[in-house]
Amino acid sequence: MQHKSFGEMTCPIARTLDLVGEWWSILILRDCFAGIRRFDDFQASLGIGTNTLTRRLNALVEAGMLERHRYSERPPRHEYLLTRRGRDFRPVLLALLAFGNAELTPEGETVVIVDATTGRQADPVVVDRRSGLELMEPRFRLAPGPAAKGATRERLASGRNEMLRPRPGPAESGPAA
Amino acid sequence: MQHKSFGEMTCPIARTLDLVGEWWSILILRDCFAGIRRFDDFQASLGIGTNTLTRRLNALVEAGMLERHRYSERPPRHEYLLTRRGRDFRPVLLALLAFGNAELTPEGETVVIVDATTGRQADPVVVDRRSGLELMEPRFRLAPGPAAKGATRERLASGRNEMLRPRPGPAESGPAA
Repeated sequence: MQHKSFGEMTCPIARTLDLVGEWWSILILRDCFAGIRRFDDFQASLGIGTNTLTRRLNALVEAGMLERHRYSERPPRHEYLLTRRGRDFRPVLLALLAFGNAELTPEGETVVIVDATTGRQADPVVVDRRSGLELMEPRFRLAPGPAAKGATRERLASGRNEMLRPRPGPAESGPAA
Repeated sequence: MQHKSFGEMTCPIARTLDLVGEWWSILILRDCFAGIRRFDDFQASLGIGTNTLTRRLNALVEAGMLERHRYSERPPRHEYLLTRRGRDFRPVLLALLAFGNAELTPEGETVVIVDATTGRQADPVVVDRRSGLELMEPRFRLAPGPAAKGATRERLASGRNEMLRPRPGPAESGPAA
């Protein structure tokens, strides 16, 4: 990373960004889900330098996202497998995929999620598992957790956080992008 | 960014990462949702250098995620508001939040999502809007979209992609992290 560590920050978003290190790490995880396991295959997929790839793979192993597994003794060769924690990163990749598809594919989508039973394209949305309600519903809000410090409690109590609000009120809305 | 642009890649994940530039951009967007609009307030929240913050804000405006709005003529002062596109980045932040909460808060969570009607903590999960089914169900899979090139089609046709598979089969499972 090019900057100071976010690891000491209490924000779970900052901590996650700290863990995955930088963009290459996220693309390596994406490739792992695509079935890639070996150094040369990551390199072919990503067009990334040997040193950078080595550093990123080591960091992901250290972060508990990947596991290094020796598949050849002579010469020594390793492959990299997703751990349980690495697999739990999936929703972040799905959210990045959905955003990219919605916003950044003027020439059409290259990868979509389909329901193989119906053949219909899926429309990913984040809901509460228990109630099935979309998290953008006004009933949901961010609240301090058990480990929240005073500053976090104050910020959240101000009621200004819009992370879970569906759209801006007219007074604060700028023109659309 | 420290590396070559991902913008030419067709993958929507790579394009999204290219758009948001680097970690600071995501934390700036997080702060925007928290109600922060002004340069000094971003700086106080992030502990970031003036030049870096200026560059990141300009890049987010250029990317169509933020809009610059002048609120004082003398001296000239601007605030930064989320655009429609910026607001659509919300699911990525929610996914990062959920991952951080699940994996990286050994001392307890600092920020949680609650259903204010019931007081219960929400458990975010990604479903298909139409059917309400979790995207990890076996019926969902990644498929080539209308703009997919040959290589993408081949990769997806191989059936190796595990992005939507709930857990590894025993043969490929390593020990949990």
